[in-house]
Amino acid sequence: MTGIEMNNWLQQRAYLTPKRTALIFENQTWTYEQLNDAVRILARTLAAQGFQKGQHIGFLMDNHPNTVMLIHALHYLNVVMVPLNKRLTPKEIDFQLRDADVHLLIVDETHENISNQLKFGEIINIDDLHREEQKDLELEDSIHLDDLHSIIYTSGTTGHPKGVMLTYGNHWWSATGSALNLGLREDDRWLCAVPLFHVSGLSILIRSVIYGITMVLHRGFESEKFVRSVHEDKVTIASVVSVMLSKVLDADTYEPFPSSFRCMLLGGGPAPYPLLKRCETEGIPVFQTYGLSESASQIVTLAPEDSFRKLGSAGKPLFPSQVKVVPTEDRTNDDAGEIFVKGPNVTKGYYKKDQVNDEKIIDGWLSTGDIGYFDEEGFLYVLDRRKDMFVSGGENVYPAEIEACLSGHDAVAEVGVTGVADERWGKVPAAFIVLRDHTDITKKSLIDYCETHLARYKVPKVFQFIDELPRNASNKILRRELIKYLNEGESE
Amino acid sequence: MTGIEMNNWLQQRAYLTPKRTALIFENQTWTYEQLNDAVRILARTLAAQGFQKGQHIGFLMDNHPNTVMLIHALHYLNVVMVPLNKRLTPKEIDFQLRDADVHLLIVDETHENISNQLKFGEIINIDDLHREEQKDLELEDSIHLDDLHSIIYTSGTTGHPKGVMLTYGNHWWSATGSALNLGLREDDRWLCAVPLFHVSGLSILIRSVIYGITMVLHRGFESEKFVRSVHEDKVTIASVVSVMLSKVLDADTYEPFPSSFRCMLLGGGPAPYPLLKRCETEGIPVFQTYGLSESASQIVTLAPEDSFRKLGSAGKPLFPSQVKVVPTEDRTNDDAGEIFVKGPNVTKGYYKKDQVNDEKIIDGWLSTGDIGYFDEEGFLYVLDRRKDMFVSGGENVYPAEIEACLSGHDAVAEVGVTGVADERWGKVPAAFIVLRDHTDITKKSLIDYCETHLARYKVPKVFQFIDELPRNASNKILRRELIKYLNEGESE
Repeated sequence: MTGIEMNNWLQQRAYLTPKRTALIFENQTWTYEQLNDAVRILARTLAAQGFQKGQHIGFLMDNHPNTVMLIHALHYLNVVMVPLNKRLTPKEIDFQLRDADVHLLIVDETHENISNQLKFGEIINIDDLHREEQKDLELEDSIHLDDLHSIIYTSGTTGHPKGVMLTYGNHWWSATGSALNLGLREDDRWLCAVPLFHVSGLSILIRSVIYGITMVLHRGFESEKFVRSVHEDKVTIASVVSVMLSKVLDADTYEPFPSSFRCMLLGGGPAPYPLLKRCETEGIPVFQTYGLSESASQIVTLAPEDSFRKLGSAGKPLFPSQVKVVPTEDRTNDDAGEIFVKGPNVTKGYYKKDQVNDEKIIDGWLSTGDIGYFDEEGFLYVLDRRKDMFVSGGENVYPAEIEACLSGHDAVAEVGVTGVADERWGKVPAAFIVLRDHTDITKKSLIDYCETHLARYKVPKVFQFIDELPRNASNKILRRELIKYLNEGESE
Repeated sequence: MTGIEMNNWLQQRAYLTPKRTALIFENQTWTYEQLNDAVRILARTLAAQGFQKGQHIGFLMDNHPNTVMLIHALHYLNVVMVPLNKRLTPKEIDFQLRDADVHLLIVDETHENISNQLKFGEIINIDDLHREEQKDLELEDSIHLDDLHSIIYTSGTTGHPKGVMLTYGNHWWSATGSALNLGLREDDRWLCAVPLFHVSGLSILIRSVIYGITMVLHRGFESEKFVRSVHEDKVTIASVVSVMLSKVLDADTYEPFPSSFRCMLLGGGPAPYPLLKRCETEGIPVFQTYGLSESASQIVTLAPEDSFRKLGSAGKPLFPSQVKVVPTEDRTNDDAGEIFVKGPNVTKGYYKKDQVNDEKIIDGWLSTGDIGYFDEEGFLYVLDRRKDMFVSGGENVYPAEIEACLSGHDAVAEVGVTGVADERWGKVPAAFIVLRDHTDITKKSLIDYCETHLARYKVPKVFQFIDELPRNASNKILRRELIKYLNEGESE
């Protein structure tokens, strides 16, 4: 079969539903027709810079309508986008630009300074672009699902990040797989307070245009603004991680969400029980989800009706996708194994990493590096990154499980867990805790709390209070660096 | 790219949402789990008959759970289904079985008699099958979107019918394209009172399992039952043609539909204005649609908010599909041309008709044989079958347009229009009318009615009242046979 071709998504949307609202940002709105008109001008301006089909174009930009327009404009030029994480150091950015064979980097005002610190030289400011001439050329009005769409670097808590290659088809199937799971309503509005340079934000942009719904875009996450926007912008769906959701519920502006708010899509690991309980009380339907850059965002989702019955589960796969768990060699006595995913939303591989691809993708099954298990009803439980798991007295210990438990404690704002050497057990869990403001807590009460929720071998033997957790550019905890904080302060 | 593979649809559904209702038929219901269990038994029984992957299996069956189960069982065996129209004559059935290289025909009780009149000998009764042994074999748990799924004969008002080849992918893309247009809700229930041997019914079955919604199946269309079912079975969507919809509104049991009823999907040609007006008054949202067996059902749909603004239009294409109008050689002075369709839901061709395929499908664009035009906003208007169009005094005349007009007259139950020879104009329109019971009407009043709605050259010069319109097995009017009825009765 030859690959599937369809009309450019924004073009088709502007034709089918020109008057629907495409984008809300601060006090501005764009219909699909307006957005398309603006994007076509931008695409022609970019074309005047001599862009060629298939070239790789990086961007380092905040969430902003300019970024939305740039992404759509790149579709019209059929170039490959390389979104760069704004938290990266200049050195990391240079690595990714070189690794991804980027031809040109586009930055916004905020990032002009960083760009001065780069070795990479081919940089344009998006604002300068808007002042350029348009080139009178035919835009690419069609999309081929097999074409490469984006290279997105995985955060990689160890080693160099790898560029995940995602095709238009990967994004398409992610969008339709999600619709088959969450449903789709003409009046849906999806709040995007996560970054567009992440697959979480990028996938909202792509879903919106395919569904013909509104993206409500925030420059970044601010809990007060988030709450106001849900009410004022008639948001029906939002993508969050646990820490965002907690802050939303704690926000000064918080008022119960309207009943039209139908889905809080919660990624980034299992939600702590108390958080879920609060959401239930508040009538906020939480869909927990497990996703990867490699699967173009969510691939496993838990419906709200199963939240409590299947506490800690990520749910079941999207309809077009498949998940399996393969026992690992280092497993001890549990049912857990490595999680593999397969489906039309799953990447064909990492850019220029043939050897890794041969090892990690077999017959379409991608090894995720995550450890998990299925219960008897086929619900997936994700335990941890394989690399973060350690063995204590012959038992597998998953730091994420202990973190999820401690996050449920009222005094705990944030927590990271890792294994530390122990003469008797080999390794034992150590918890590094950031306390909530004005809280006082004893180590003993934390131990008591853990003992009521966790098996004894999972209860941390070390508790260390610290001011801030070490995180990478994607805001993930760098567990391997926790060890540095040991003995730094008093462990109560 | 290698083709896309996914889990067997029913298997995946039974895994993801086992407790949701899959099927309602009369007073029985099946969850997805129950349906899947029953289907797997049937598939193993069929396997015991020696079915082989890729074989062609015909069926001649009423709408019934057995038919639903058979269709799903055929998916598990990866054989190709050839649904046969129950209105066909034995001779026509023999033609299609031979033409489609059918290996075995499965019939139900109702059709056992017809099967005695066939030359074709390999026939099994589905009830006998249920009494057979199961074969202990591995079922095909995966589906390849490029595999051939069904061969569906087009009704063909002239010449031999042709077998449209539809892949799993064609059906998949039809289902997801429809969801992107109509939206999708977890509590959707789709009423199927159209035949499962038609693409209209078959596509409801396939959408239901992909969406995870309920199919409410009727043995056939009965207006009273239809209305009761909408209320009692909590139907939210139904597929109809105009004549069904009229009867529903006229039914003795009719009561206004609940607000949860969100879509009356109306195919089979433009709806008469009075019918649309009645639906508006009754609060029934009508989505008019244009579809073909060749596009695995709908490909162009009109949203209710445009019903009156764009009266007579079929709407705009589904998101993944494309439509164009190509001027025909025989066009005179209008903007109309032949309608071509393209998209992943469109057939790759007719079975064993390479020459026809080469002529009718160019670069993925399928010539539909229908005539239509786009207005300035890109809404498609389907005028008629190209073969039914005729020229009168240099003007193109489309019988369907005149029929749609006359159907709006209170006295007219049904109407067929064709061109008859005329010395002065070449051809002129002749209307063959079935009056409503107990109605009396003069030719003059019909002329007056037409003159207020149609250009003068479209007003029929001949009106003939008849008892019944000639129709083919698919219930389409055989316009070419209308001429036989001329002078048969009095023309007023």
